[in-house]
Amino acid sequence: MILGNLGNTCDRFCKGYKDNPSSDDMLAIAKAKIPHIEGIELVGTWDIRPDNVKDMKKKLEQYDFKCASIIPDTFTDPAFAKGSITSIDSSTRKKALDYLRQMCDIARIIDCQTMNLWLGQDGYDYLLTADYNQEREWLRESTYTLATEFPDLKFALEYKPKEPRNFSYHSRMADTILAARETGCKNVGVTIDTGHSFFAGENVAEAVVLAKRAGNMLFHMHFNDNHGSWDDDMIVGNVHSIVYIELLFWLKKTGYEGWLSMDQYPYREDGAEAIAESILWVKKFEKIVDEYYHEIETLISHNDAIETSRFLRKLF
Amino acid sequence: MILGNLGNTCDRFCKGYKDNPSSDDMLAIAKAKIPHIEGIELVGTWDIRPDNVKDMKKKLEQYDFKCASIIPDTFTDPAFAKGSITSIDSSTRKKALDYLRQMCDIARIIDCQTMNLWLGQDGYDYLLTADYNQEREWLRESTYTLATEFPDLKFALEYKPKEPRNFSYHSRMADTILAARETGCKNVGVTIDTGHSFFAGENVAEAVVLAKRAGNMLFHMHFNDNHGSWDDDMIVGNVHSIVYIELLFWLKKTGYEGWLSMDQYPYREDGAEAIAESILWVKKFEKIVDEYYHEIETLISHNDAIETSRFLRKLF
Amino acid sequence: MILGNLGNTCDRFCKGYKDNPSSDDMLAIAKAKIPHIEGIELVGTWDIRPDNVKDMKKKLEQYDFKCASIIPDTFTDPAFAKGSITSIDSSTRKKALDYLRQMCDIARIIDCQTMNLWLGQDGYDYLLTADYNQEREWLRESTYTLATEFPDLKFALEYKPKEPRNFSYHSRMADTILAARETGCKNVGVTIDTGHSFFAGENVAEAVVLAKRAGNMLFHMHFNDNHGSWDDDMIVGNVHSIVYIELLFWLKKTGYEGWLSMDQYPYREDGAEAIAESILWVKKFEKIVDEYYHEIETLISHNDAIETSRFLRKLF
Amino acid sequence: MILGNLGNTCDRFCKGYKDNPSSDDMLAIAKAKIPHIEGIELVGTWDIRPDNVKDMKKKLEQYDFKCASIIPDTFTDPAFAKGSITSIDSSTRKKALDYLRQMCDIARIIDCQTMNLWLGQDGYDYLLTADYNQEREWLRESTYTLATEFPDLKFALEYKPKEPRNFSYHSRMADTILAARETGCKNVGVTIDTGHSFFAGENVAEAVVLAKRAGNMLFHMHFNDNHGSWDDDMIVGNVHSIVYIELLFWLKKTGYEGWLSMDQYPYREDGAEAIAESILWVKKFEKIVDEYYHEIETLISHNDAIETSRFLRKLF
Repeated sequence: MILGNLGNTCDRFCKGYKDNPSSDDMLAIAKAKIPHIEGIELVGTWDIRPDNVKDMKKKLEQYDFKCASIIPDTFTDPAFAKGSITSIDSSTRKKALDYLRQMCDIARIIDCQTMNLWLGQDGYDYLLTADYNQEREWLRESTYTLATEFPDLKFALEYKPKEPRNFSYHSRMADTILAARETGCKNVGVTIDTGHSFFAGENVAEAVVLAKRAGNMLFHMHFNDNHGSWDDDMIVGNVHSIVYIELLFWLKKTGYEGWLSMDQYPYREDGAEAIAESILWVKKFEKIVDEYYHEIETLISHNDAIETSRFLRKLF
Repeated sequence: MILGNLGNTCDRFCKGYKDNPSSDDMLAIAKAKIPHIEGIELVGTWDIRPDNVKDMKKKLEQYDFKCASIIPDTFTDPAFAKGSITSIDSSTRKKALDYLRQMCDIARIIDCQTMNLWLGQDGYDYLLTADYNQEREWLRESTYTLATEFPDLKFALEYKPKEPRNFSYHSRMADTILAARETGCKNVGVTIDTGHSFFAGENVAEAVVLAKRAGNMLFHMHFNDNHGSWDDDMIVGNVHSIVYIELLFWLKKTGYEGWLSMDQYPYREDGAEAIAESILWVKKFEKIVDEYYHEIETLISHNDAIETSRFLRKLF
Repeated sequence: MILGNLGNTCDRFCKGYKDNPSSDDMLAIAKAKIPHIEGIELVGTWDIRPDNVKDMKKKLEQYDFKCASIIPDTFTDPAFAKGSITSIDSSTRKKALDYLRQMCDIARIIDCQTMNLWLGQDGYDYLLTADYNQEREWLRESTYTLATEFPDLKFALEYKPKEPRNFSYHSRMADTILAARETGCKNVGVTIDTGHSFFAGENVAEAVVLAKRAGNMLFHMHFNDNHGSWDDDMIVGNVHSIVYIELLFWLKKTGYEGWLSMDQYPYREDGAEAIAESILWVKKFEKIVDEYYHEIETLISHNDAIETSRFLRKLF
Repeated sequence: MILGNLGNTCDRFCKGYKDNPSSDDMLAIAKAKIPHIEGIELVGTWDIRPDNVKDMKKKLEQYDFKCASIIPDTFTDPAFAKGSITSIDSSTRKKALDYLRQMCDIARIIDCQTMNLWLGQDGYDYLLTADYNQEREWLRESTYTLATEFPDLKFALEYKPKEPRNFSYHSRMADTILAARETGCKNVGVTIDTGHSFFAGENVAEAVVLAKRAGNMLFHMHFNDNHGSWDDDMIVGNVHSIVYIELLFWLKKTGYEGWLSMDQYPYREDGAEAIAESILWVKKFEKIVDEYYHEIETLISHNDAIETSRFLRKLF
């Protein structure tokens, strides 16, 4: 799970729906209240910085948590409001790249293998205001630089169609594969956030297959749910059901071996309870996939909606 | 169920995915192959006309089917391409109204109480091409005329945001309530088609509540499923689950006493099997609502997403 | 314009893209830098409170600004996180109603005739967590109470499909008309925010006609633009063009006499410049409507897309 | 333009809104009534077959039209209802491939260089009914086979998110680039249909840049407009304006040298007039781009929404 999911939530209207515990307190809560947690994703700067990395390493060991990923924060600093590594300002690009390098150094210290790069500010808002080719070139260069300087780390690019920018450069699975491939580096891949995929108009299971066909490019998974038109960041399984079953089936079939991490934004709910619910939903769907794996394999080879419908009915 | 669901399916590219049985054959299929059918919806002109209404009445009696509704066909005749009762051409409006009257006469003969008016061609495609106020006035007038001339019939206006027109005049629950109320006639109400509601951005259970608060204005229900952005007209329960449970709960809570009818468009599936599947899904969801009715009543009064999530998990 | 548009902007990731001037400074900026401003909308608590209302009144007079509306703030206080006047907690409902009364008192002092009620927190997030009928009843009661206690004020209900809640009770024009009518009070009407309408799937010009037909229920207008799927709150005219022309035509044709106010959220732009741009765009579209009013009247009566297209081409 | 745009239009409800002229008559209409036509796209089987290819070649020469592309028809034959080259039935796949080969032979005869492959039936409708990996492998194999057997032809894959299938395999620019690249053939590229791109949630100008960066993979362009949520196939410029300007700017900037072809579906309009309108709109937007090319280049390098807005205002 992402540690910050236990913290304060806000939106552009309300600055805070709840209190914000310290990273230490959130770790304790995660251990005490949430079942099945094996790894923690840490957000750069908020949870982990050069000054606290050794302390954090110890704490994770104490709790027997692995560091599943580090998520560098290029999205809360107004210096990156119009882009981090794709800003038209060269000093801003340099600042962003240096920050990312710092986070990679930290990852090495804390034995974390995956950098989850959600470049939320890298995109654009208005038509006719951005040189897409130039900015994508900067995107490629910095991603390449990082991947080359840190060949022992995996860089998982997390895509999302929009928010906070009206259009993101990493927006869906296929364009993010293209962006990753432009670097020519094998340690650059993709993170699926289920909710981002839902409101991107993709079928998320097919996105898994695209990543597989592109060469095992699915590096990481974030789970949450939404109503289909926006990143509502809800508890898993409270809107969708069958798409999760199909997703978990294809993760298994394609041999995905990464984390299944929870990434929500429980605006008005208790964070620990909300994460716990999501985990239990994923476990429920996983159990269904495990139990019916061969039956599902047969179904997808038959291409018969009636037969699939009959199967699905018996799950309720 | 709508009888025509057993017939040929086509789209704007392919003229026919299957053969088109006669209405008689379709009745026989409905009886033989589909469980739980108590009523049949007949599409005007296709299934029922002045020349065959007496025959059809006998056949329905033989099969022990009620005529759940008549759906006048104002959507396949190119004469109504730019509107039936809202056409800017007065002779077209008259033609449409006379046709609707004819269908109402037939309804009386066949002891059908509900006219399901899906005015698919009444809307517009391009901006700045329609006088919305004038056309809505024509819509009001003709609806009023019918409702007044046939006070023993119920007129259920079926809404849909678009298709075949880019914008429909009856597009969502609330605007259709307004259109119905403009007539001042108590025998004018609304039909919900679940799929139309899904891609309208409504929460369908809330639409039921709107109709209740407006004065028991929900007259009829059509069931199908889709992926959320279009009227895919799929088998119930193959995409959505929880929304159906919430819908059936609110139908029960608001005392809905009308039909639960199946309206699909099984492009590439066997029609009888597809309808049968939908019925069995609705039965499954109904059973859940019946079993947990009081628990759900408590949940909706608590406004606690965690508690609801825990409840929903146990249904799988 | 809404005064707060000149202030800080943030989102759920970044707490502040800019500095936040005082209300006084924003008034000075509005006067000095933005053309054609005649009225100011003040957000309750932020801009105007019992303790500063007399000062604010003087300042508006000095600048020769009218107070176009007061927008009570029920959306930034976490006490209203799960609803203000629709909260399941009776003390929260009372707190919200008392706050709204206080804002109405202020409106009388400052000679403001319109309360713009954007009840952003009144809605729901998860399925099966809300009693829509009960909560809508509370909504009706409090709206009725206000409208009856302050019969000299107009209450303009601003609708929006979602954000910050996943579903809002005032979500589109037609359901908001229904909610207004439930009160039985003639001083309850509707505010259109163009961007809210765009991502609600409505055609905004038709929404104007719905309000007209319901009895001059359009009380207020907010202008901004977006890419169609979310409330991007952009400068007018930077995505859409023709919809604004159609909108302004219908505002004129239906005799709308309220304000044309700018409501944006210039995340990364200079606020004054962004508002100025929107105003100049609206002026440009207004000029087109004034110049071609009778031609457009003819076009909408002809229902001929080719003819309309020819007309529109000459505007570029 | 696509010749068939002058023919009958229908939808799944209405079998025909107009008469269907012969291909010969449509050619005569195109010559006589539509300005600026230099090339014609012919739909396989409808317009061109082995038995009429020589006649058609002569007629095109008489009219001084080039054959801009051939669009093989894999979408109207119910044999391909569940896929053409991706059907799970090997004999169907073979039938489809043989048909495509036949169309390629015809292209050589008629001196047409571009095969526009819109594989409308290749996709899926229901979750858990398709083996995405296997079907994409068949897609790759057949595309590779064609591209290798006909190295003198260009294969332009036209993407569309859905319709007639609920999900298409070629759905957006980026995944279609991936599908093209999987073949390893340089003569496989992509067709943009502007309307498909609009309702795919892409920014179409950015799609042009993606194709450029992938190696000049944009082979062909289809123009039309829509309201943003569906393939309404309307006259260009009747909803969107600025996106076309940005699109044409980037086509010029990336050195696109292919056709600008019109592809509409004028359900209720005169076909020739509707196409003529679209052409005149594209010409209008092209003229703006030519006139302001360097100014736009500057704007996109400045990343300043205010400056862009000021520029755009002067175009009206």
